[in-house]
Amino acid sequence: MGLYSAAAAVIEQPAEPLLVVISGPSGVGKDTVLDRMKQRGLPFHFVVTATTRPRRPGEVEGEDYFFVGEQEFLDMIEKGELIEHALVYNDHKGVPRQQIRAAMESGQDVVMRVDVQGAKTIQSLAPEALLIFLTARDEDELSRRLRKRRTESEADLKLRLEAAKEELGYLDIFDYVVLNADSTVETAVDTILAIIEAEHHRINPRRVNL
Amino acid sequence: MGLYSAAAAVIEQPAEPLLVVISGPSGVGKDTVLDRMKQRGLPFHFVVTATTRPRRPGEVEGEDYFFVGEQEFLDMIEKGELIEHALVYNDHKGVPRQQIRAAMESGQDVVMRVDVQGAKTIQSLAPEALLIFLTARDEDELSRRLRKRRTESEADLKLRLEAAKEELGYLDIFDYVVLNADSTVETAVDTILAIIEAEHHRINPRRVNL
Repeated sequence: MGLYSAAAAVIEQPAEPLLVVISGPSGVGKDTVLDRMKQRGLPFHFVVTATTRPRRPGEVEGEDYFFVGEQEFLDMIEKGELIEHALVYNDHKGVPRQQIRAAMESGQDVVMRVDVQGAKTIQSLAPEALLIFLTARDEDELSRRLRKRRTESEADLKLRLEAAKEELGYLDIFDYVVLNADSTVETAVDTILAIIEAEHHRINPRRVNL
Repeated sequence: MGLYSAAAAVIEQPAEPLLVVISGPSGVGKDTVLDRMKQRGLPFHFVVTATTRPRRPGEVEGEDYFFVGEQEFLDMIEKGELIEHALVYNDHKGVPRQQIRAAMESGQDVVMRVDVQGAKTIQSLAPEALLIFLTARDEDELSRRLRKRRTESEADLKLRLEAAKEELGYLDIFDYVVLNADSTVETAVDTILAIIEAEHHRINPRRVNL
């Protein structure tokens, strides 16, 4: 019964909450994917970003964003209250640390979207965060060339890999890559949920300290 | 577009086939789980074990088992044709290497069930195999004690962890643990499929050489 008991001990632990970071290039559809995830009614905490951008009609304080003044935002940075922040089109955006902590302490998985630079920052702060890279399958020339590379000579392949090295440097910080083409948003969400489900069954769970 | 292209390169690769090893204590329901997986009609190759046990009524050669003679089995061992073998109730059972290789070369995920000793052997031969530990939630005293341990003192916890250490030594070789209680067979199968799905989206795929 030894194995039963040891495994039961793993099972009996409340699942370690995950910090799920959804990133990818601008325009890849991160917001759409997050919206669809929210519609599934799952017990995740979706991080609400703080921003200095003026509220737009229809936007709800504390739901779409926390709308804060410039000085208030700078104070939050000063006090280390944001785990990540960026200046986007002259507006500040930042991710409140305490919000994430509180949700994780209550046992909830936390889901957030950030750009690739932000993902890098979070990965260095919390190496155990679960980083998912959303990608689109584009049809440009480079993509077509890369698709063909399996039939190329070793020398050609090497050249292309060297050229892709810098780009791949970004990818290496991520754990998973998920395709989000126009027709596949629901599939992308399914895959993300499968990843989260799987990660909750790891023998060695991720333990995030923020 | 750099990030698009690099990620597209990952996506464009055919998914690396997985060697999925389903293990766990005797009686946990490995066969049932495998049967239910087969019923889902997914494009996996389920490994057919070679055995010296006589064929039982209803069993189909090459589907339930490969039925071989004692000498033939010993020859297979001799020639290194089995990646793992064991003597179970005076009958030999073994896992044919070539069958796994052929299925993986055709791009199929390979699913097999073995006991915990067998899982250890496969893990040492193919560290990139995906090892799933099936467990039952039993109701014995140890399990109840372990369940309570979150409310215990650090000293108590240490003692218990030391006692569980040897047991946990077995678990450490596994990647995931999945509960298979009586009422949860379909849930267990769902979780295993989520794990396989997730693993196909890893940035660094497992590459098995056998």
